[in-house]
Amino acid sequence: MDVRFFEGPEFAKGHGTQNDFVVLPDPDGELKLTDAHVRALCDRRRGFGADGVLRVVPTAAIPDAPADLHPDVWFMDYRNADGSIAEMCGNGVRVFARYLVDSGLVTGTEFPVGTRAGLRQVRTHSDGGSTVDMGAANVFGESAATLAGRDFPGLAVDLGNPHLACVTDADLDALDLAESPAHDSEVFPNGVNVEFVRPTGPGRVRMRVHERGVGETRSCGTGTVAAAVAALRADGETTGSRTVDVPGGTVQVEVTGVTTLLTGPAVLVGGGRIDAGWWRQLAGG
Amino acid sequence: MDVRFFEGPEFAKGHGTQNDFVVLPDPDGELKLTDAHVRALCDRRRGFGADGVLRVVPTAAIPDAPADLHPDVWFMDYRNADGSIAEMCGNGVRVFARYLVDSGLVTGTEFPVGTRAGLRQVRTHSDGGSTVDMGAANVFGESAATLAGRDFPGLAVDLGNPHLACVTDADLDALDLAESPAHDSEVFPNGVNVEFVRPTGPGRVRMRVHERGVGETRSCGTGTVAAAVAALRADGETTGSRTVDVPGGTVQVEVTGVTTLLTGPAVLVGGGRIDAGWWRQLAGG
Repeated sequence: MDVRFFEGPEFAKGHGTQNDFVVLPDPDGELKLTDAHVRALCDRRRGFGADGVLRVVPTAAIPDAPADLHPDVWFMDYRNADGSIAEMCGNGVRVFARYLVDSGLVTGTEFPVGTRAGLRQVRTHSDGGSTVDMGAANVFGESAATLAGRDFPGLAVDLGNPHLACVTDADLDALDLAESPAHDSEVFPNGVNVEFVRPTGPGRVRMRVHERGVGETRSCGTGTVAAAVAALRADGETTGSRTVDVPGGTVQVEVTGVTTLLTGPAVLVGGGRIDAGWWRQLAGG
Repeated sequence: MDVRFFEGPEFAKGHGTQNDFVVLPDPDGELKLTDAHVRALCDRRRGFGADGVLRVVPTAAIPDAPADLHPDVWFMDYRNADGSIAEMCGNGVRVFARYLVDSGLVTGTEFPVGTRAGLRQVRTHSDGGSTVDMGAANVFGESAATLAGRDFPGLAVDLGNPHLACVTDADLDALDLAESPAHDSEVFPNGVNVEFVRPTGPGRVRMRVHERGVGETRSCGTGTVAAAVAALRADGETTGSRTVDVPGGTVQVEVTGVTTLLTGPAVLVGGGRIDAGWWRQLAGG
């Protein structure tokens, strides 16, 4: 028997430390992907459920791709669950890399991926994990988050998006992140992702994160990099590595003099085809 | 290109009024489906995400199937998201019926489905919806639920599982169903599903439901039947039909002298194959 009777676009579902994604391969750049499609795919009851969609498309098919990207490079066209476009997603690009290798779209285990934030070098590992070069972390000051009347001093870090990484000895389990931590809007005029980072052993920290516009999440790739940068600083270092435990799993962050590397699990759960009628109906609605 | 490179068991994802399910076709009854598999498939970040799993298997392969079921009938082996076995699921059997027709496992649009609660007659419609014969609703008394200090008188209805359907003129949006409504444990020794039912027009009601052991859900098939029975009684009737609006959509319930029929949308979103490595790893863990 072959009950793979669905005839719409191809898809896969995967996650990196429980940041989860619907992958949509589109090698000819022909997929008409509307906001309604993205919202329905990401809906956790009406669709497959995901934090975002990763369309796999040649850079040549992306009109607004950075001009210095080679047209043949596979481009990660990332959409948030609400349909909006995002520049980058650290865990997303790791799952994207895993997909390219497992599907045979690339050969080898080291290759570049195009994103709206520029080229990202990735590497996949035999244990299923993957590493992405996240670029330099730009520390641009110090600030503090306030939660339930308590101040958490932290480091302001730019990784394409703004972070406030607060190393603390507070009990992370006791923090109520249903509330948004308050921040200094002069330092962060466009809002900020706030990380609460507690050292738990040599070279290891635990982190909880509140993402701007989202709330607490189980993982945040750029957030773990900001956390590692702040944890290193707290130990008087500017380079080195940290293992970061987040609610969704564990990643490793390496901070060098010129860039940062994020390594962690990238899991593909399965995939196939979307129902053609469902897809058509969404295109019309 | 064909990126359908996954080689594990086949699956599909679907929902009925946002009760969502992973369908696992197993025509030879050979699938080793552990609790760990079910929990991972239903996990909304690590897996595909669902309220439950519907394994599609011949009755002959189910040792504990009711003895009066024909061995060739397709059996809905229903598992809750925690891996436990459930007897029946009204929205699940409607999605199951849709799957049987779309996959070609049955021909025609009216056929029986085996469940642990016995045979259920189903019918699929050209608009994508489906109808299931839910059996007789057994009204066994009156009782009341208490929520935030307010009593809601209601009808005790058995549909294989116990319900307390409370017709009310209260503002349903104002109810806080994060709390469990209190009930009379002498009437409902094994707990109860509580429906708050407000008439909204001729032959139409709105419903919110608190499922025992789960909390508020976006839909509950047996709950909508109990709601319709109670709404009819409130109008001095014991048979007839009601349209029931739930947070996840709209269903129609027909109550006859001998049985009840539940009709509503049944959507298949897509499907394919599960990753073989992921499946194996779960079997070991």
